[in-house]
Amino acid sequence: MRRSIVNDPDDLVAEALEGLVLSHPTMLELDAEHRYISRKQKARDKVGLVSGGGSGHEPLHSGFVGTGMLDVAVSGAVFASPTALQVLAGTKAADAGRGVVQIVKNYTGDVLNFRIAGEISGDDAIDTEIVLVDDDLASDTGEDDGPGRRGTAATVIVEKICGAAAENGMDLQQVAAVGRTVAQRSRTMSLALAAGTHPGDDEPQFTLDADEVEFGVGIHGERAQRRIPFTGADELIEQLVDPLLEELELGRGTEVLAIVNGLGSAYPLELSLAARALHRRLDTDGITVGRSLVGSYVTSLDMHGVSITLMPLEDELRELWDAPVRTPALTW
Amino acid sequence: MRRSIVNDPDDLVAEALEGLVLSHPTMLELDAEHRYISRKQKARDKVGLVSGGGSGHEPLHSGFVGTGMLDVAVSGAVFASPTALQVLAGTKAADAGRGVVQIVKNYTGDVLNFRIAGEISGDDAIDTEIVLVDDDLASDTGEDDGPGRRGTAATVIVEKICGAAAENGMDLQQVAAVGRTVAQRSRTMSLALAAGTHPGDDEPQFTLDADEVEFGVGIHGERAQRRIPFTGADELIEQLVDPLLEELELGRGTEVLAIVNGLGSAYPLELSLAARALHRRLDTDGITVGRSLVGSYVTSLDMHGVSITLMPLEDELRELWDAPVRTPALTW
Repeated sequence: MRRSIVNDPDDLVAEALEGLVLSHPTMLELDAEHRYISRKQKARDKVGLVSGGGSGHEPLHSGFVGTGMLDVAVSGAVFASPTALQVLAGTKAADAGRGVVQIVKNYTGDVLNFRIAGEISGDDAIDTEIVLVDDDLASDTGEDDGPGRRGTAATVIVEKICGAAAENGMDLQQVAAVGRTVAQRSRTMSLALAAGTHPGDDEPQFTLDADEVEFGVGIHGERAQRRIPFTGADELIEQLVDPLLEELELGRGTEVLAIVNGLGSAYPLELSLAARALHRRLDTDGITVGRSLVGSYVTSLDMHGVSITLMPLEDELRELWDAPVRTPALTW
Repeated sequence: MRRSIVNDPDDLVAEALEGLVLSHPTMLELDAEHRYISRKQKARDKVGLVSGGGSGHEPLHSGFVGTGMLDVAVSGAVFASPTALQVLAGTKAADAGRGVVQIVKNYTGDVLNFRIAGEISGDDAIDTEIVLVDDDLASDTGEDDGPGRRGTAATVIVEKICGAAAENGMDLQQVAAVGRTVAQRSRTMSLALAAGTHPGDDEPQFTLDADEVEFGVGIHGERAQRRIPFTGADELIEQLVDPLLEELELGRGTEVLAIVNGLGSAYPLELSLAARALHRRLDTDGITVGRSLVGSYVTSLDMHGVSITLMPLEDELRELWDAPVRTPALTW
C-alpha cells in the first residue's frame, strides 16, 4: 500500500506547480492557464528553449527552468503529454526573437503536440527546431517502423548543454545541432526493484517477485523486455553499464559524462553505491568519468530504481556542461 | 517488501562514502580509516566546522561539506553514532588553528562521543565548542531530566549559517553563538505515511493502518506520541505547522526561513504540494516565507514522510543564509 501526500489527485499538477513557484519566487513564474513555468527574468536576445511532457518525472522539466538552462517548461497531467495549445503558449513565451528550440522526449503524444505547436508558431513568425531525445537503449527496436527509443535521463544533458549554447549566443540552428549531437551520443539503461504508484492509487503499477528486477524499465512504468535476478549493487550496475559500453563503442581512454539517476525512492546511500559501482566498472575498461551527476533528476513517481546514462565527452561539450547554471534542481 | 541497492549491508557506509567522493573528486576527500569526508581544498585561517552522526540521513552530513558550510563530516553506521575516536580524528582535520565548532544533533551517543572528542582535542591545544541542535518539537518532554528534544532538519540551517559565519572570519565563540541562536529559534515537526526499511531487511521499522499517519516521528524511525487520521496534504501540513507557530510564538509580519523536508521517498510533486500548503497556512496568519528549502535534506532511509522546520529570520541570519555555499547537496 502506498499513499501520497496529495489533496484531490486531479488537482495535483496545478497545485504542485503553484508550490514550486512559491518556493522559488525570485526565479520562476507560473502561467496557471497553460500550466507552464517560465523564468521570472525573461532572457533577451538569445535562442529560446522550451521543454515539457507528462508530470511525475520531477525535477524534470520544471526544476530546470532558469539561467543557463530552460526558458519554459510545460506540464501535462501525470504521465500524459501537455496539449498542443499548452506547448504553443509555452513556445511563444520562450521566444525572444531568435527562435525556439523545443526539447522533446521521444513519446508519441509529446512528439505530436510539440510538432503541431511548432507548426502553428510558424504562423506567428517564430522559427522552431525540435531536438528529439531518445536515449533509452532498452526500447531500441532496431530498424522497424515503431516509435523508436524512448527519451529518459539524457534529457537533462540536452537541456543543460543547449541552455549553455543559447546563453553563449549561438543561433537557432547551432543550438539545435549541439542538442542533437548530445542526444545522438547519449544512451541510458534503467532497472527497477519496485514500480511507482499513481497518486490516489493504493497499488503500484506492477509487482515483482522477491528475486526479480525489472531490467530496462521505462519512466512511465513501461514493463521491460526481461527480468533479471536480484543481486548486489555492483552486479546490478554492471548489467546496466555493459550494454551501454557496447552500444556506444567506448574504448580505453574515453572520458564520459555519467548520470546516476534515482527513479524516485532510491535514497542517497543507494545512489552513492551505484556511483561507486559505475566508477569501478568503467575503470576496468580504462574509461574515466570526467563529469557526473548523482541524484534523482528524472523520476517516475516513487519508483524504486536507478538508471545510468553515459555520453562520451569532448572539449566543446565539456565547456558547455561546465558553464554556469542556476535553476531549482541544478546550480553551479 | 523493500529491497535495497546494496552489496553487503555491513559495507554500505564505507562504500557509499567512496561513491560520494568519486562523484565529487574536486570537492571532497575521504579518510577511509576514520570514515570522515573533508574538503579537498582545506580552508585556512578560519574556525573549523565538524559535524556527523549515524548514516541513513543523507545528504546530511557528508553532502554539506564544502565552501561555506562544513569542513568535515564524520559517519557512523546506519543510525549509530560515530565513535569518539572517529570524531576526534575529524575534529583535528577540521582545525585550521582557530578552533573547531562541533555541530551535534541531540542524541545520547552523538553528544557523548563529540564531548569526549572535544575533551581529548583540548590536550592537543585545539579549542572546541559544541552547538547542540534540538529542534524536534514532538520529542519535547518539558522540564524533566530526559534527553530532551531530538535534533533533525534544523541541522541544515545551523550548518549553513555557522559555515557562513566561519568564512566571514568570526572567531570560535562568535560562530558557536550564532549556531546556538539558530538552534534555539528553530523547531521541526515530522510525519510519516510509511516507515523506512534497514538495508538488508525486508520489512519496514513499523507498519501503519491505511487510515493512520505517524505524527511526530523521529528520523531513526522513533515512534511518535500519537497517530492521526490520513487526510489530504493541506490538512496534514496544517497539523505540522500549528504546533510550530504556537511554540515559536510567531506573530503577524514575521518572516521565516522554512524547510520542507522529504524523509526519503516523498517525491518532488508531494514536496511541492507540502510547500504550497505551508505557504497558504502561514499566509492566513500574516507570516511570510522569506527563504525556503524544499527537498530531501535530512532523510531516514526510504521513510515516506515530510517534516516542516521554521525559524524566524532577522537581518544577520538572512545575510549568513544568503552567503555563497558550494557543497554536493546545497549550492548557491
